Amino acid sequence: MVLFSPAVRAAGFLRNKPFLKLRHPLLRSMSTGAFNSKIHAENIQVELTSTPKQKPVFDHSLPFGKVFTDHMLEIEWSKQEGFSTPRIVPYHKLQLDPSVPALHYGVQCFEGMKAYKDAQGKVRLFRPELNMKRFHDSCTRLALPDLDEEGMLQSIAKFVRLEEAWVPDVDGCSLYLRPTCIGTTEYLGVAAPSHALIYCIACPVGPYFADGFAPVKVLAETTYKRAFKGGTGDSKVGGNYAPGLLPQQLSSKKGYSQVLWLGEDDAVTEVGAMNLFVFWTTPQGKKQLITAPLDGTILPGVTRNSILELARKWGEFDVSESVYTMQEVQAAVKEGRVIEVFGAGTAAVVAPVNGIGYMDQNLEIPCGPDGKAGALTRRLFDTLSDIHYGRSHEANWSMIV
Amino acid sequence: MVLFSPAVRAAGFLRNKPFLKLRHPLLRSMSTGAFNSKIHAENIQVELTSTPKQKPVFDHSLPFGKVFTDHMLEIEWSKQEGFSTPRIVPYHKLQLDPSVPALHYGVQCFEGMKAYKDAQGKVRLFRPELNMKRFHDSCTRLALPDLDEEGMLQSIAKFVRLEEAWVPDVDGCSLYLRPTCIGTTEYLGVAAPSHALIYCIACPVGPYFADGFAPVKVLAETTYKRAFKGGTGDSKVGGNYAPGLLPQQLSSKKGYSQVLWLGEDDAVTEVGAMNLFVFWTTPQGKKQLITAPLDGTILPGVTRNSILELARKWGEFDVSESVYTMQEVQAAVKEGRVIEVFGAGTAAVVAPVNGIGYMDQNLEIPCGPDGKAGALTRRLFDTLSDIHYGRSHEANWSMIV
Repeated sequence: MVLFSPAVRAAGFLRNKPFLKLRHPLLRSMSTGAFNSKIHAENIQVELTSTPKQKPVFDHSLPFGKVFTDHMLEIEWSKQEGFSTPRIVPYHKLQLDPSVPALHYGVQCFEGMKAYKDAQGKVRLFRPELNMKRFHDSCTRLALPDLDEEGMLQSIAKFVRLEEAWVPDVDGCSLYLRPTCIGTTEYLGVAAPSHALIYCIACPVGPYFADGFAPVKVLAETTYKRAFKGGTGDSKVGGNYAPGLLPQQLSSKKGYSQVLWLGEDDAVTEVGAMNLFVFWTTPQGKKQLITAPLDGTILPGVTRNSILELARKWGEFDVSESVYTMQEVQAAVKEGRVIEVFGAGTAAVVAPVNGIGYMDQNLEIPCGPDGKAGALTRRLFDTLSDIHYGRSHEANWSMIV
Repeated sequence: MVLFSPAVRAAGFLRNKPFLKLRHPLLRSMSTGAFNSKIHAENIQVELTSTPKQKPVFDHSLPFGKVFTDHMLEIEWSKQEGFSTPRIVPYHKLQLDPSVPALHYGVQCFEGMKAYKDAQGKVRLFRPELNMKRFHDSCTRLALPDLDEEGMLQSIAKFVRLEEAWVPDVDGCSLYLRPTCIGTTEYLGVAAPSHALIYCIACPVGPYFADGFAPVKVLAETTYKRAFKGGTGDSKVGGNYAPGLLPQQLSSKKGYSQVLWLGEDDAVTEVGAMNLFVFWTTPQGKKQLITAPLDGTILPGVTRNSILELARKWGEFDVSESVYTMQEVQAAVKEGRVIEVFGAGTAAVVAPVNGIGYMDQNLEIPCGPDGKAGALTRRLFDTLSDIHYGRSHEANWSMIV
């Protein structure tokens, strides 16, 4: 047992297998010549780090996306050979030829998901099959590999088990996972990639709001657009994000935290990198939770989907996926019909909005009696958090890895 | 002189300078602490390769984008220190942290330009200041560094001089240059990059058409879109290209070589990665060369701009940058008013189109008496080629490096 760190001993999948210690560059030549359309997680290869990092203190001050775990998951793909055997190797810099399409033509997509530790110390993923489905669809949209969702998920599960000690056992904290697929052909032509690398890195993160809800002011952006029909707004691809950095900087200078993205005729679409929900009373006097429909311009968020399912199951108010505009939101604010507005995504779960800048006006949005978050926002946060951490089994949405 | 290869001896800028042989990773620590808003090409550092490659045969069979020269140009940037001293180092794989925004959020932009060898053996760039201007604007659009255009161009010129022996001395061949800027912050947050890498690689290339003009059939794409107002269609950024790979594959299956991108109301915009020109007789009986206007969705091509300037100088027909639609092209084809259609870009100069698929119809486009290219297409190709190779000084568009 002296060969294994506690993390490895905890990773049961290693117990009954010969331990493979393989040097990373050599693996490239281990091809069998056959075409693998599947990712064989059962054959995963592991090379443990010889220099484990000092773990940060797991508390609410953990920053997002800066501290990474000891290892990473890698799977290579080529048009000729399909997927390589997945491997877990020490976290390392990628060696990429300067000509690869991942660096020139935006041939890259990713997922964002979290692993949570429950009170019994078990590690849980939240609806990971939805992330794998979307990862598959994003790859397809960019002519990247036809992803084996099941093999990918099993490989990620094994990676998370190996890094179990990096999953914080603190409520509100989690291990953020970033599966990524990039085109790696060494060729400057604009063409579907013949080679790709799929990898997953992980970082322990604190809650989005370290000290409880802090509502944000958002700026409805009328010049720059996030997405358009016929584009990639419904895929999680790199090219959706960089164009938002400049508008984000400009909105920040005007005192807003996030950009509220508008579609045609100022339809409300998303906020920052989150889906957006408005809870209001319709002009007909009906209470309604509304969010933009999946018309090809909207990211099919896992949190978005879960909120819709929960709210529909509760059956206490109308739930709608349909087009609504800033003009309608503006009228509803003026008439006192807006109850709550919040963003929804894996990072924050839900993020309350207390103001929307639109056409040089600031629309004030209610945020509950304490001005921090409304009742529905809080209820959704609590319900989803209870499922994340295995305190509730209301929905069969939590997978123990 | 025994230390220097012929290429280096030819590169005069090295003659009067102490030769700096610096190992690449050490350079990172050479910061002075001061902020550099300029790229100091006059201080460029050079590390020559110890293993020069075998050069390919320079003829028309040279492929595009597969064979790279011995060296590359690199400049680092950080928000705190600005631009590093530029350096020319052996061509090498980039070591990138797997968390950098270049690989997740499409924080990447590039340029495409060519160096030509004239009959006197001098190396020429074509209107490189336009590429630098666009490179600057692409960086700005993605919250990348405020590029020093002059310092960048001088650095590229020094790089090209060093690689002079890689510039083919064959008409139709050239050294393709790929300046690139990528965000390199080691951070998963969606934020403006604090670190970036600017690099330039180069590859000798043959002509786009190895055996003279070969006209292409293009498919007008009505489902997928290339760009939209408020997006990045007028910048040369990675995210503009990956979304086109799937439509390109689909059009290829239908027997078309390229995608013809449409805008709102089926306005004709670009073809593949080129601007598009139609030469026709208007319904009013006027001969006109038309291309889509720079409304924010169109790439401001250097070849596009040069064709417009040449045609306006010639003054033989109307030249228009304005919106025109597939319906208008369709009507013009039916009425026999279309004279020629061609794509325009750095790779091909001009590429004749002999058919457009639209709404399950194939519109046949004339291509001159031999069916390969019309008279205007040929004239533009010859005029521009003569300027590229220094045979004509009609316009002051050629810079000797």
